Amino acid sequence: MASVSIDLNADLGEGFGRWQLTDDEQLLSVVTSANVACGFHAGDAATMRRVCAMAAERGVRIGAQVSYRDLAGFGRRAMDVPSEELAAEVAYQIGALEVFTRAAGTRVSYVKPHGALYNRVVHDEDQARAVVDGVLLADDTLPVLGLPGSRLLETAEKAGLPVVTEAFADRAYTAEGTLVPRGQDGAVITDPEAVVERSVSLARSGVVMSHTGEEIAVRARSLCLHGDTPGAVGLARRVRAELESAGVRVEAFV
Amino acid sequence: MASVSIDLNADLGEGFGRWQLTDDEQLLSVVTSANVACGFHAGDAATMRRVCAMAAERGVRIGAQVSYRDLAGFGRRAMDVPSEELAAEVAYQIGALEVFTRAAGTRVSYVKPHGALYNRVVHDEDQARAVVDGVLLADDTLPVLGLPGSRLLETAEKAGLPVVTEAFADRAYTAEGTLVPRGQDGAVITDPEAVVERSVSLARSGVVMSHTGEEIAVRARSLCLHGDTPGAVGLARRVRAELESAGVRVEAFV
Amino acid sequence: MASVSIDLNADLGEGFGRWQLTDDEQLLSVVTSANVACGFHAGDAATMRRVCAMAAERGVRIGAQVSYRDLAGFGRRAMDVPSEELAAEVAYQIGALEVFTRAAGTRVSYVKPHGALYNRVVHDEDQARAVVDGVLLADDTLPVLGLPGSRLLETAEKAGLPVVTEAFADRAYTAEGTLVPRGQDGAVITDPEAVVERSVSLARSGVVMSHTGEEIAVRARSLCLHGDTPGAVGLARRVRAELESAGVRVEAFV
Amino acid sequence: MASVSIDLNADLGEGFGRWQLTDDEQLLSVVTSANVACGFHAGDAATMRRVCAMAAERGVRIGAQVSYRDLAGFGRRAMDVPSEELAAEVAYQIGALEVFTRAAGTRVSYVKPHGALYNRVVHDEDQARAVVDGVLLADDTLPVLGLPGSRLLETAEKAGLPVVTEAFADRAYTAEGTLVPRGQDGAVITDPEAVVERSVSLARSGVVMSHTGEEIAVRARSLCLHGDTPGAVGLARRVRAELESAGVRVEAFV
Repeated sequence: MASVSIDLNADLGEGFGRWQLTDDEQLLSVVTSANVACGFHAGDAATMRRVCAMAAERGVRIGAQVSYRDLAGFGRRAMDVPSEELAAEVAYQIGALEVFTRAAGTRVSYVKPHGALYNRVVHDEDQARAVVDGVLLADDTLPVLGLPGSRLLETAEKAGLPVVTEAFADRAYTAEGTLVPRGQDGAVITDPEAVVERSVSLARSGVVMSHTGEEIAVRARSLCLHGDTPGAVGLARRVRAELESAGVRVEAFV
Repeated sequence: MASVSIDLNADLGEGFGRWQLTDDEQLLSVVTSANVACGFHAGDAATMRRVCAMAAERGVRIGAQVSYRDLAGFGRRAMDVPSEELAAEVAYQIGALEVFTRAAGTRVSYVKPHGALYNRVVHDEDQARAVVDGVLLADDTLPVLGLPGSRLLETAEKAGLPVVTEAFADRAYTAEGTLVPRGQDGAVITDPEAVVERSVSLARSGVVMSHTGEEIAVRARSLCLHGDTPGAVGLARRVRAELESAGVRVEAFV
Repeated sequence: MASVSIDLNADLGEGFGRWQLTDDEQLLSVVTSANVACGFHAGDAATMRRVCAMAAERGVRIGAQVSYRDLAGFGRRAMDVPSEELAAEVAYQIGALEVFTRAAGTRVSYVKPHGALYNRVVHDEDQARAVVDGVLLADDTLPVLGLPGSRLLETAEKAGLPVVTEAFADRAYTAEGTLVPRGQDGAVITDPEAVVERSVSLARSGVVMSHTGEEIAVRARSLCLHGDTPGAVGLARRVRAELESAGVRVEAFV
Repeated sequence: MASVSIDLNADLGEGFGRWQLTDDEQLLSVVTSANVACGFHAGDAATMRRVCAMAAERGVRIGAQVSYRDLAGFGRRAMDVPSEELAAEVAYQIGALEVFTRAAGTRVSYVKPHGALYNRVVHDEDQARAVVDGVLLADDTLPVLGLPGSRLLETAEKAGLPVVTEAFADRAYTAEGTLVPRGQDGAVITDPEAVVERSVSLARSGVVMSHTGEEIAVRARSLCLHGDTPGAVGLARRVRAELESAGVRVEAFV
């Protein structure tokens, strides 16, 4: 088998002022791409600066994790934002982050929507288009990270933006290759062994077992790891170690 | 007398969402430099985008009007923000604006603090330094616009940033050349004739009458016009017309 | 014909900090019920206090106009807020307003949702229930003001809350008695004569012409007037004068 | 010696949305008075409701911890808020909390300023007056909790409000009985034994050793415990246990 490679991404810098959430320093020793909160769902300016400096130092790529403007809801509540506003808000967040990546000697390498916006642009044509418009406003060469088959990636691709697909080793998939919605039984895979095994399978063969037992193909250039639960960093470390043992190169997609 | 030139600056884009304040379109037909609100005291992303597009179209320079994070107080309440946070917040605002200037085919041409931050950095060494640090983080070639003799301009100059001095034709000056504080009798000059006359005098000879009757020298490369009161745009137009009649070239400082 | 009476309600206190929107003083000379913004879509604490004092002085009833937490969008963007959060946010807003009504020697007399929340609870069972839960948390005797036939009023009624129906003289109705959605041709009636005539008809006979030409019955104890457009206050005054000329008593519903 | 009693107060409900800070459940098993955040420095509506319900269930008194409007700075940055605005904001917060105490079958029992506002009203006459005005707007029988000798308590007393003094067992005192400012060497006492010993001494005899070695009198009806550091809850438990062993009744002041 030819050598394969995978990117590992995680959400970082998700504190706000006095509040902390993610263990940014530890996560940065595991991932190759850091989705940095830009102030709309989390991430004050000083945190953004610090996380960008740490990521740059470790050679971790920095992505703009853009969100609905919703600190109270952590960006997890879908909002009917008019397209023009949403596009401008996406561009605003990218620009704000850019300044800190530049100060750290690097740049914004990609854009990934957060939370409710991420889920919405899987299906919502208008909001997907607005996010893409926002990216284009900011930088028309920026890759967009998202779910394979999503409206977001389709729209980005049509607009000439590079797209990067991602998979979730800790989420169940349907036989059609979509995520089993949170809230349904078994939607989230909590057994660490299973998560590690699925990570290796996704990275090496692009195949994973659906929750109804079929082998399905999931095209993914990046794996999303979670960092906001107890034990998350330890599990992320194991995933990375097992990938490397299995001969998978762990490296950023850009 | 040699030909003289003056820049005219005004605050723009000071709406927020549903609320409007300044008549941006009219002001852009008068000024040569637009201080654009960046979201911390006013200025949502869609407004920033629109104002940048209009300014660029008219050849008006765009400056980042950076502020304390205080929408409820319109940036008019002094805050004891730690230096590191303030620097990062200044950079954040510049970066966010930058994206819209770039999309409009231009760039951020200068930085001017707003409201309580503007007043504070006249005297406060630490906050002046923090603002300068924020500018340096974003772009170490950006001019800083402020009061002659202020800590802000001194600190910016020492840090190697270009500085631009401004004067206020509608504010009374002390014999020492500082502004008579708002709230004192006669601090604001409301007679349009006087404002026009002082504008011409400031631009042509750099001289203005203090409120105690002495002629004083006020070094200013830019005049600040106000746009948020009824009649303000009309007065701004008259100032510009009278300056031009008096042989003063009205042009941006960059 | 027996004597009839109608309440006139309008949104007030919709400024925020430096920004003003509604002409509160003028509106308070026309309406009998003031829907006061409680800080979530508009309405800072000082404005709330001032509006409550003015309303109490004039004997105008004060209602809590509760909204999604969305200053940037003026509460006009539908949000998927979890029920428990929404209920708590509704109660929070009512409590905050209550303090200013009490200081003015009166009380919160009713609750009316604003903007996107108003529209959502016409149809959305869960959010209607959450709003009602929020009202019950605050005060289980508070009337709820809304559209006849809405989930909101149905749910409020089942929960034992008094309900008050309202109609819009400046909105077109379908033959089924629902509002023609904004955005459709003719949804908003801009001809002042028509607005006045429909107001009188709604108040006297509870009948209005649908946009397809049928006479339909619209049960309404209150008419909603708009105050945020030029000429709005003048039109509101005319409506009130014509109602009184037509023998309709204009009076609050409580 | 006559029997003595002391109140134990701590800050609670200091999360916001997704972010948590204090271990509210554990703290409520130790303290007799809970200073509940009201949404301006921390504390979303759902958290306020939950904390009030838990406190009421355990018989813990609930106080409104009022703050500057500053989520990004956790209320720790002094702000020059005009008196009228500050008073209204204080009343707003009390009213919002009231609704949740009432729903829990109890009431707001006192008011305590938070963070930078707490520190400012020790010396600042205008802001102290504004806080008192805010309390009076909300309820002119509400006790105010603060430092003995502070402008806040003086102003509250003159206005006819009950005042409650508090002391800090983990802070060093000067020979004059004021707190050694944070940032100075030894300002915070980190040795648990010392904190416990000082708690007992403060409660039993109202005496504590100043940082320069003199015995000084500190009048305090309540002791403030901290809950936002690791080990804080454990230390709070020990303080309470030792107070009880020493014959001090631990009970709310109202």
